[in-house]
Amino acid sequence: MAAAAPPPPPTPTPDQPIQLPSNPTTHSLFTRIRLATISDVPQIHKLIHQMAVFERLTHLFSATESSLSTTLFNSPPFQSFTVFILEVSQLPFPLDQTTILTKTLNHETPINDQDSEIFRSNGSGFIVAGFVLFFPNYSTFLAKPGFYIEDIFVRECYRRKGFGKMLLSAVAGQAVKMGYGRVEWCVLDWNVNAIKFYEEMGADVMKEWRICRLTGAALESYGYQG
Amino acid sequence: MAAAAPPPPPTPTPDQPIQLPSNPTTHSLFTRIRLATISDVPQIHKLIHQMAVFERLTHLFSATESSLSTTLFNSPPFQSFTVFILEVSQLPFPLDQTTILTKTLNHETPINDQDSEIFRSNGSGFIVAGFVLFFPNYSTFLAKPGFYIEDIFVRECYRRKGFGKMLLSAVAGQAVKMGYGRVEWCVLDWNVNAIKFYEEMGADVMKEWRICRLTGAALESYGYQG
Repeated sequence: MAAAAPPPPPTPTPDQPIQLPSNPTTHSLFTRIRLATISDVPQIHKLIHQMAVFERLTHLFSATESSLSTTLFNSPPFQSFTVFILEVSQLPFPLDQTTILTKTLNHETPINDQDSEIFRSNGSGFIVAGFVLFFPNYSTFLAKPGFYIEDIFVRECYRRKGFGKMLLSAVAGQAVKMGYGRVEWCVLDWNVNAIKFYEEMGADVMKEWRICRLTGAALESYGYQG
Repeated sequence: MAAAAPPPPPTPTPDQPIQLPSNPTTHSLFTRIRLATISDVPQIHKLIHQMAVFERLTHLFSATESSLSTTLFNSPPFQSFTVFILEVSQLPFPLDQTTILTKTLNHETPINDQDSEIFRSNGSGFIVAGFVLFFPNYSTFLAKPGFYIEDIFVRECYRRKGFGKMLLSAVAGQAVKMGYGRVEWCVLDWNVNAIKFYEEMGADVMKEWRICRLTGAALESYGYQG
């Protein structure tokens, strides 16, 4: 998908005086979504930990940078587990092959990101603000792959700015580009704001289906068959 | 996993008379689960169609043998979409590298399979009785892959004989073998028999989670971004 370039500055003409911005305190925040690589693992690990804290599920969190490095990025992008990183910057991003989507936000108050140093992206001036992890799934009725989104997360100070929608749209756009049949993910039934948001994005919330999970000792008990 | 060989015949000893089978009309049915290949697509297509009929969802069924052939079996087994085929036979199966699990059932009434000819497996004497389609998913908290089961189906005349459990156990056993963290699938909330069956197998039914699905025109609308 092409980049959404910032609007050009107004061009003065003899008939038209130079227009000052209506709000001189407006700040531009450049954002991009790009394909993650193994060098992003330290930031991805911190984001997953923040997600566990947010969901009050740190007792289930056992990922380490090493275990993420071993299990992610073993296949070409989109063929298996794939991560998109959301980055923000005070300056425009260079366009490169890993860029999926860019967008410029204009807002009145600068964002106070107290963790910007620890979320600096690979020593660059860009700050990691969120991520989405997804992988192919398959519909037998359609005989087509789709994408399943396992996690979508935006750091707290960057929320309510459309970044969640931007990450989800990036995955949906990639699915369309690849001719895939659907994009799926899960939501907690009491999270009515999220459900409303997803329905406004065009998703169906499938009320009758329940997820079954076999894990831990119950799963291990199936391992003795050999 | 190793094959569960049929029990040896009773060995007569001088102290012990030959014991006749308690029920002389008992029939042996040899069963195996094996990895599917692209040559199984005609049978897989018929099974998916039968599943659509059973679920009264034929209006959503658009898979063809050609579309299944194009989208399945493009990756080594277990790395992407993987199919296990359940076969039955009146004679023992030869053991080969594609065999995942075998089992011998003894039952009093022979199974009346009226579709046995159209479900004959690649011109052999074996009959295809069911399948399971699954693929890797990923837990960020565990930093481990798992398996997601998209479909599990047993043809009607082979139901209530433990084949569903056998297919599910085969996937769970494979997950354990690969060091994976979990196996997941979905069930309809009103299907209380299935829920009871899965819970008895050790699965948790996650009551709070709902699946969101973006498909059709709603998905296509995300494709114009460039």
